[in-house]
Amino acid sequence: MVTLLTDFGLEDPYTAMMKGAVLSINPAARIIDISHHIPAGAVMQASWALFETYPYFPEKTVHVAVVDPGVGTRRRPILVKARSHLFVGPDNGIFSPILEDCRDAQIIHLKDPRYFLKHVSNTFHGRDLFAPAAAYLSLGTDPLAMGPMIDDPVRLPFPRPYTKKGSLWGQIVRVDHFGNLITNLRAEDVKKFLAGRRGIIAVGNLRVEGISKTYGEAPPRQALALFGSSGRLEIAVNKGRAADRAGLETAMLVGGEVMVSPSPGDADHS
Amino acid sequence: MVTLLTDFGLEDPYTAMMKGAVLSINPAARIIDISHHIPAGAVMQASWALFETYPYFPEKTVHVAVVDPGVGTRRRPILVKARSHLFVGPDNGIFSPILEDCRDAQIIHLKDPRYFLKHVSNTFHGRDLFAPAAAYLSLGTDPLAMGPMIDDPVRLPFPRPYTKKGSLWGQIVRVDHFGNLITNLRAEDVKKFLAGRRGIIAVGNLRVEGISKTYGEAPPRQALALFGSSGRLEIAVNKGRAADRAGLETAMLVGGEVMVSPSPGDADHS
Amino acid sequence: MVTLLTDFGLEDPYTAMMKGAVLSINPAARIIDISHHIPAGAVMQASWALFETYPYFPEKTVHVAVVDPGVGTRRRPILVKARSHLFVGPDNGIFSPILEDCRDAQIIHLKDPRYFLKHVSNTFHGRDLFAPAAAYLSLGTDPLAMGPMIDDPVRLPFPRPYTKKGSLWGQIVRVDHFGNLITNLRAEDVKKFLAGRRGIIAVGNLRVEGISKTYGEAPPRQALALFGSSGRLEIAVNKGRAADRAGLETAMLVGGEVMVSPSPGDADHS
Repeated sequence: MVTLLTDFGLEDPYTAMMKGAVLSINPAARIIDISHHIPAGAVMQASWALFETYPYFPEKTVHVAVVDPGVGTRRRPILVKARSHLFVGPDNGIFSPILEDCRDAQIIHLKDPRYFLKHVSNTFHGRDLFAPAAAYLSLGTDPLAMGPMIDDPVRLPFPRPYTKKGSLWGQIVRVDHFGNLITNLRAEDVKKFLAGRRGIIAVGNLRVEGISKTYGEAPPRQALALFGSSGRLEIAVNKGRAADRAGLETAMLVGGEVMVSPSPGDADHS
Repeated sequence: MVTLLTDFGLEDPYTAMMKGAVLSINPAARIIDISHHIPAGAVMQASWALFETYPYFPEKTVHVAVVDPGVGTRRRPILVKARSHLFVGPDNGIFSPILEDCRDAQIIHLKDPRYFLKHVSNTFHGRDLFAPAAAYLSLGTDPLAMGPMIDDPVRLPFPRPYTKKGSLWGQIVRVDHFGNLITNLRAEDVKKFLAGRRGIIAVGNLRVEGISKTYGEAPPRQALALFGSSGRLEIAVNKGRAADRAGLETAMLVGGEVMVSPSPGDADHS
Repeated sequence: MVTLLTDFGLEDPYTAMMKGAVLSINPAARIIDISHHIPAGAVMQASWALFETYPYFPEKTVHVAVVDPGVGTRRRPILVKARSHLFVGPDNGIFSPILEDCRDAQIIHLKDPRYFLKHVSNTFHGRDLFAPAAAYLSLGTDPLAMGPMIDDPVRLPFPRPYTKKGSLWGQIVRVDHFGNLITNLRAEDVKKFLAGRRGIIAVGNLRVEGISKTYGEAPPRQALALFGSSGRLEIAVNKGRAADRAGLETAMLVGGEVMVSPSPGDADHS
C-alpha cells in the first residue's frame, strides 16, 4: 500500500505520472491519495497532515510526501522507518513531527540509483525518484539496501503550547474545509489546565465559554470549542465557518494565537 | 467494493483517514470516490447524487455517505439494504430517495461497537464508525449482526412536479460543473405532458422552444433543453453555462422553478 | 489498468458513474485518474496532458479521454492502439499528438453496441460507451472486434516552433498549478539553437538570462527558465507564480509567444 501527499493540485497530470511510475514497477500496488491540495511549498502544513493521518493506515504502508520547493538542489532524498510505517520524501523537515514522536526511527539517505527511474529530472523527484523508491519498498525491498543511514535530518521548529499569566496559550495549526480552527492544544493538556473549570477560549474576535461535545450543541451560527477528531482543541461555528468569524486575516489564521483561561469566579461546572 | 460520498473536500486528510480505516480492516477493499465536494451540510444534494450514481456500481457494493451536520448528537447511524446494495451513513434523510424508490428496503440501527474503531470521537463518525462498518460489510459481515432493524428513518420532503394553469412545473435539483441546470422532471412525464407538441421551457431569464437531442444541436452560446444522462429535463447553453445566464442568484438556482408549457398554437412538430 | 482524463470536475458524480460502469464489467480493473480538471471543452489541453502522461503507465494500459463538446452529434467514438497502449475517446483530435508521434497507430471506429451499456444516452458517452469499451479492452477483448479500422481521424493543428530574425520562437502550451509556463520548445532544440551561448528567454513582461537547472537556483521571487520535467523549456518564478508576473491576460497565457535569443556579444558560458 502506497499513500501520496503533495502540493501538486489535481489540474495537472503530475500526480498521475507518479502513480504510473509506481504501477510500472509494482502493478499490484494500492495507491491512496492523502491530499494534493497542500498550499504550494507549505512543508509544515504537509508534515502535520501526514502525522495526523498515517496511523489510520495498516502497518508497512509506504507514505510518499512531496512538498519540495528545494527539488534539484542539494537537499537529500530520504526514507524514514518509524512505527512500522515507511516514509519517503525530501529532507526538508516534512517528517519532523514523526521523528519527534518516534525517537528510534531509522533514517536513510536514498542514494542508490537502481531504485530511481533511469532519467531523473531536476524538477520532478516525486515522479523520478520518490515514487519508484516507494514502489520498490512496496515490493519488499530492504530499506537498508537503498542508501546509508543518517542521523542529522532537517527538523522544523514546531510551536509548543505554554502557560503565561494564568492562561494556557496555543496556536492554530490548520484551518479545515469547514472553516474549523484546529489548534496544537491537546485535549489532555487543556483538561489538566482547566481542572474541572469551564474555561474561556479566545481566538481573534471569537470568545467561547466552556467546551462542547459536538458541533450541534451550540445554536446555529454560534461559536463553540470542542476536542476535535485529532484529539486537539478546535474552535468551530455551528452551521458556519469559524475562519470567517475570527476577524483574523486569512494569512494570519495558521499561527494565530489561542488563549484558554479559567472563567472569572469559575468552579467545577464541567 | 466501497464508495465514499462526503462534504469533506479534498484539502484536508479526512477522506484519507476514512480510507485508511477501511483498509486497516479489509486490506483488499476497492474504494471509489463518488464525490467529496458536496456543499457543507447539503444533505438533500448528497442524497440525490447517491441515488443517481449507485445503480452504475455492481451489486453488493457498500456505499458510505457522510454529510452529517448532526454528528455526535442523538441522530442514529444506520445501514440500508436496498436493491442488493448496502448504504451506510447518518439517519438524517440522506437515503430518502433510495427508500422512496425501494419500498422493501431493510434499515438497521448500527449499534454494535464491535464494528466501530475502538475510540469513537464525537466529531468524525465517518472515520470512526461508518468506514469501519463498511469495511466489515465488504468482508461479508451480516447486516443483521450489526444492530436492530428500525422502520422510522428520517425522510426528507422532496419537491414533486405538478401541473397548474395548463403548464407542468418542476424544480432545479442540481447545477453541474458545466453550469447545466438539472431538474426533477422525468423525460417520460415531460413527453406525456407535451404529447407531441414542441413546448416552451422557461427557467429564470431563459426561454427555450423545443427539446434537443444533444448539446451541439443549438448554436454556440444559445440555450437549449434536453433530456440529460439521468433521464431528466436539463437546461444547458451550448459552449456556455446556463447557470450564468438564468438570471437567478446562485443561492436560488437549486430549487428554482422550471415551467414547461405548450407553445401557442402548437401542433405535433416533434 | 484503466486511466481516466475528463473535463467533468469532481463536484458531480459523473466520474464515479464512469468508474461504476467499468467495474460492473471488470470488477478487477484498476482505475487511475489522470485529471478531471481540464477546462470545459479544452480538447487541445487534454490531448497534451494525455501525451505527456501515458508513457509513465505500464504497457496495455487503457486510457479513456473524454473532453467531448460534440457528444451525441455525428463525431465518431474511436479506439487508438499505439506504442502498446490503448486509447478510447471521441474522434475530435484529442489523440492528435499520439498519432503524430506514432505513425503506425491503428485506429478503430467503435461501432459494435455489444461493448456499450444497453442504453446509450445522447449526452454521456463517457459512461455509456467509452467506459464500457475500456472495461472490455481491460478484459482482453480484441480491438478489431469492436469496429472497423479507419484512417482519417480528426487531427488538431499543433503550433510548431520556428526561427525568425535570429531567434527561436515557441508557444506556451500549458500553465501548471504552480503558475509555471510550459512551452512547446524541446530541450534538445533549444540547446542546439543556443549552441553553448547563455541566451535570453522572453515571454510577456518576463525576461530571463540563461537557463537554470533547478527552481531554487534563482533568488526568491525572481524569474528563471529551465528544462522542466517533460523535457521542455519552462519559465518559472522561484517561490512565486510566473503566470502572475508575465503581464499577459489569463486567457492569453496558453498560446502566448516565447522568444529565445542569443545574448548580445554572448560566447560559451554554459
